[in-house]
Amino acid sequence: MDEAAVGIRPPSDASPVPGHVYLVGAGPGDPGLLTVRAAYLLARCQVILPDDLVSPEILALADPSAIIIPVGKRCGQPRVTQAGIHELMLEHARPAPGRAARSVLRLKSGDPLVFGRAREEMDTLRAAGLPFEVVPGITAAFAVAAALGTSLTDREFSSRLVLATGHHAHGKPPVASLAPAATTSDLEATLALYMPGRDFAGLSASLLRDGLRQDTPVVAVSRASTARQQITMTTVAGLATANPGPAPLLLLVGEALR
Amino acid sequence: MDEAAVGIRPPSDASPVPGHVYLVGAGPGDPGLLTVRAAYLLARCQVILPDDLVSPEILALADPSAIIIPVGKRCGQPRVTQAGIHELMLEHARPAPGRAARSVLRLKSGDPLVFGRAREEMDTLRAAGLPFEVVPGITAAFAVAAALGTSLTDREFSSRLVLATGHHAHGKPPVASLAPAATTSDLEATLALYMPGRDFAGLSASLLRDGLRQDTPVVAVSRASTARQQITMTTVAGLATANPGPAPLLLLVGEALR
Repeated sequence: MDEAAVGIRPPSDASPVPGHVYLVGAGPGDPGLLTVRAAYLLARCQVILPDDLVSPEILALADPSAIIIPVGKRCGQPRVTQAGIHELMLEHARPAPGRAARSVLRLKSGDPLVFGRAREEMDTLRAAGLPFEVVPGITAAFAVAAALGTSLTDREFSSRLVLATGHHAHGKPPVASLAPAATTSDLEATLALYMPGRDFAGLSASLLRDGLRQDTPVVAVSRASTARQQITMTTVAGLATANPGPAPLLLLVGEALR
Repeated sequence: MDEAAVGIRPPSDASPVPGHVYLVGAGPGDPGLLTVRAAYLLARCQVILPDDLVSPEILALADPSAIIIPVGKRCGQPRVTQAGIHELMLEHARPAPGRAARSVLRLKSGDPLVFGRAREEMDTLRAAGLPFEVVPGITAAFAVAAALGTSLTDREFSSRLVLATGHHAHGKPPVASLAPAATTSDLEATLALYMPGRDFAGLSASLLRDGLRQDTPVVAVSRASTARQQITMTTVAGLATANPGPAPLLLLVGEALR
């Protein structure tokens, strides 16, 4: 067993270092929900590689001289492939003939380590020997709960929060894997479902099969924390015919939302 | 079914209003992991009611003229009762003879809506007719994952993140309720266990009974994101004899940590 005092974060005002890569959560969209460290790095990094879902209000906080290269993927149709993102990180962080190494900010919506491909990006950076720092971000479920003024857990009847996604690697069924997160034995959990897709009838049926009550509250939030945020309040049964706003969409399901 | 564009957040530099209460997540301890909005409010609110786990480095960012009243509870021994916290919020937010209403910052470690008693505090504020704003915070699991450079989910083999607590309301068993979060049908989940208590042998046995492999990685993090952070790497079997650092303690369990 190893014990170590490792992983201590740098001070929030440690300047970005050329040749280093910063994997940073941008939060749900509201610039006020950036972390202090993320805002500091955003104002100072030389190259910024943002996902599509990072809001314009947040990118407006970048150093005006920064090189901004959007690397978003929309609806599974890659504009820049994952390998392309890796290449861009390495290309800009390394010195090139005639120019020095640059500080690179890889800016991901929400938290960088949940439902993203940060593992692959960290593996790439480790293999290349490039130092990196990860800065966590506010994930949409927390931002939505705060905006609604509703607790995600309750000490009496909802002691767990399950973050799950309907979007999987190729070859994995998108909805079937929901079941274990909401089995009859886990009705005490609040479920936050990211990227749920648009088959709400199938999702409703799946949740009912898993033993959830028809009247269990469901909150669907489109474009959380932005000016275009749209909230739909329904139930597990009502979800079947619901028509929540466009992606990015988050569903919250559970008795804690009642 | 209701649809509404509600719950839009105020601008990050909206001044705190006397008579309003701000329920704010302080994150895990590092001031750099405060949100921009939280840091702004912290520097400007007139009364601050922090939990014990809010770090001195964070409280140092308060307005020097602010009234700071710690309301922490340690190991279940209340110094200020929950009812006492409610009274303090109302007392300071309301005008009193000879003084005006004050802006009140209720500062909670991590995120305010996960494993806290924010529901009771919001109910109190609603009943009293006091306006309030909730600001989400970085929860310890995300901060720990960022410090370790390890993803919490993996699109191939860990598609869910379960946040659970070993600490319950009186009369609920602390460990038994873990089982549903880590049943054999949910081995794809990463489990983040807050306030796990100190019965690590019992916890290890419970996880093994639930079908987790003996060699499933476990990371125990004491005092996450502070200078006294202490990380213990072990396994589900090794947890039985582990001796991680003191509270606040967080356990991460799952294949995604391998």
